[in-house]
Amino acid sequence: MDSSSTLLAAMKTVLAGNQFPVALHEPSFSEREQQLVKDCLDSGYVSSVGEHVDRFELQLAEYLGADYVVAVVNGTAALHISLLLAGVVVSDEVIIPALSFVATANAVRYCGATPHFVDSEPHTLGIGPAKLSDYLAEILQLDGGVWRNKNTGCRVSAIVAMHTLGHPVDMGALNIVAARYGLPVIEDAAESLGSCYKGKMTGTLASIAAISFNGNKIITTGGGGAIVIRDKQLAVRAKHLTTTAKISHAWEIAHDETGFNYRMPNLNAALGCAQLERITAFIEQKRRLADAYSDAFFSVTGISVFQEPEFSRSNYWLNALLLDEADLDKRNAVLKLLNNEAIMARPVWTLMHKLPMYRDNPRMDLSVVEDLEQRLICIPSSPFLIEATGHA
Amino acid sequence: MDSSSTLLAAMKTVLAGNQFPVALHEPSFSEREQQLVKDCLDSGYVSSVGEHVDRFELQLAEYLGADYVVAVVNGTAALHISLLLAGVVVSDEVIIPALSFVATANAVRYCGATPHFVDSEPHTLGIGPAKLSDYLAEILQLDGGVWRNKNTGCRVSAIVAMHTLGHPVDMGALNIVAARYGLPVIEDAAESLGSCYKGKMTGTLASIAAISFNGNKIITTGGGGAIVIRDKQLAVRAKHLTTTAKISHAWEIAHDETGFNYRMPNLNAALGCAQLERITAFIEQKRRLADAYSDAFFSVTGISVFQEPEFSRSNYWLNALLLDEADLDKRNAVLKLLNNEAIMARPVWTLMHKLPMYRDNPRMDLSVVEDLEQRLICIPSSPFLIEATGHA
Repeated sequence: MDSSSTLLAAMKTVLAGNQFPVALHEPSFSEREQQLVKDCLDSGYVSSVGEHVDRFELQLAEYLGADYVVAVVNGTAALHISLLLAGVVVSDEVIIPALSFVATANAVRYCGATPHFVDSEPHTLGIGPAKLSDYLAEILQLDGGVWRNKNTGCRVSAIVAMHTLGHPVDMGALNIVAARYGLPVIEDAAESLGSCYKGKMTGTLASIAAISFNGNKIITTGGGGAIVIRDKQLAVRAKHLTTTAKISHAWEIAHDETGFNYRMPNLNAALGCAQLERITAFIEQKRRLADAYSDAFFSVTGISVFQEPEFSRSNYWLNALLLDEADLDKRNAVLKLLNNEAIMARPVWTLMHKLPMYRDNPRMDLSVVEDLEQRLICIPSSPFLIEATGHA
Repeated sequence: MDSSSTLLAAMKTVLAGNQFPVALHEPSFSEREQQLVKDCLDSGYVSSVGEHVDRFELQLAEYLGADYVVAVVNGTAALHISLLLAGVVVSDEVIIPALSFVATANAVRYCGATPHFVDSEPHTLGIGPAKLSDYLAEILQLDGGVWRNKNTGCRVSAIVAMHTLGHPVDMGALNIVAARYGLPVIEDAAESLGSCYKGKMTGTLASIAAISFNGNKIITTGGGGAIVIRDKQLAVRAKHLTTTAKISHAWEIAHDETGFNYRMPNLNAALGCAQLERITAFIEQKRRLADAYSDAFFSVTGISVFQEPEFSRSNYWLNALLLDEADLDKRNAVLKLLNNEAIMARPVWTLMHKLPMYRDNPRMDLSVVEDLEQRLICIPSSPFLIEATGHA
């Protein structure tokens, strides 16, 4: 790898004109956000009922080309309900990538189920269908119509495919593997809103998907999430489960199951409506920023910028540098260098099977993510960074 | 009971000057709310980090005279974490009132524990300490240092005291009963922010309390809640559990247990800061509204307005009419009459033990709440209703 100064020069070429410190990802608000939030306050409807939350759901469904959208308090809640919709119950195992944010694993635990960790493939960062196929053939056995993990005896009831840093999983291939065992696939599209796989939006590539609108995401509602659903019955159920399972009545207050208080407040949805109007522009900016990083690092030895998979058009939610070789010391040296220069950088998440509460969970060989963990460095990716630079 | 027309006349005396339909409870926003929310958007910090959420916590702690406050996404999340802090674990039983909003019971279920329903006393609407004392003496037995329900064998691990419609439970007496068995008490102060028991704020009468800022509460953050905590260690743990149990580090992203994404977004906290500045005025208005209802119904036969318990100063979150005699038909006739006249009215919540998912749960004799359920009718209580009427 080139010297630190070469690497730093490349970063500074891209970030020139911006204010330091440069954060990893910050939102951008305009007059439009101010206006819709003001309208919401003026209406008096800021909570679980209101026109903005309905509008946000419709607007998002239209943007995605999706059938049904249910807005919720955050991406974690969206994952939790998605798993319940998929039929995950206590004592099941759910296949999830070891390379993910902890919410993916936590949501499985909220259902009383066990996260079962699988490997990624290097060119998508997401679950590798071929390796998963071999693994499932090895560990699954059919027992009274139910596919169980031979080693634990637990039913395996779903697969969560996480589109890491915004880059789409090879969903076509993954869906084929899942179908072989009748396993529902849930897209964890928390980071990939606006990313396409073979021309179709992530979030619409499986029967259920979860999206996040946290402050660091491509658009934000402050805190927020959404469940994207194909089946009408499931959509009705999602709405019911996220609104305390309340039975509709003019005045009686009754509930027919243990539901959740997961509805997105109207105030947050108002912000979301304005943000969603701007997503196409954000993605353009973010793709130009990704190009600028690629150009700047073209001639830097030993390091490159992670590129979207061939079959995809990514939102490049978070750009990442990729060391040619796995080397934790080098990775940490780069992290230190950048953070010391007020350029926020971070590694990928600590792999799920290395966290104390998931250390003993079932898992396959995880050599690809173990390698990637030592090579990836996430770098600043706010959409507005490219404007300040003057990059055309 | 007097004729429908007498009752309606009394209601209309109080609500004269207001726009119909009159909702049960609506928030009131001023320039100040607009300003703080605008400031928040201008800052760019709308999500899980920001000055408003820290400020809101401090402002609330100061208002309550509380030690620590942790702001969360809603009152349900506050209850869930409160129960975990109190040490509730899978297979425990938790004593909760049968007369409550479903979130109280659901939060117990989220911990994998079982809600065990107890009766209220008529003058507070909350748990009756004397009846509870007799009941616990009858059903609890000490088994290896643990108090268990004789009938189920389950450990009983906490009591949740809900301040119904804003009126304080007789906490002094309840705390004595709980102490006898070493049971932690959690105040469900979702509705009672600003209500005092013997001069002390609800939310500070036990070691842990949960508050709600839903759109229908005395102040709102859109969606939101707070945990009020005495012990510093528990407060640190509450913050940790509500922020995905993330370990603090300059760039590494690691977590040391299965936490929750429950942090209140900064955007919602900004609204809360402005609302909290106005709470004293809201309570004054609501107490005057309660007086106006009492005056108007003074001469109506067979019905009265529920009054705060003697030892308390209530926020009168939701005013309630009280039929002299339990009569479901009469209650429903009044509900129909008022709703038909565009005056929103509703009964209390369907009692918890009557909901399908909690039908078979352990419970004591519930004759008081069964009686109250047929007598109580909640009526419009927005603070601004009194301004429109011209009542001094």
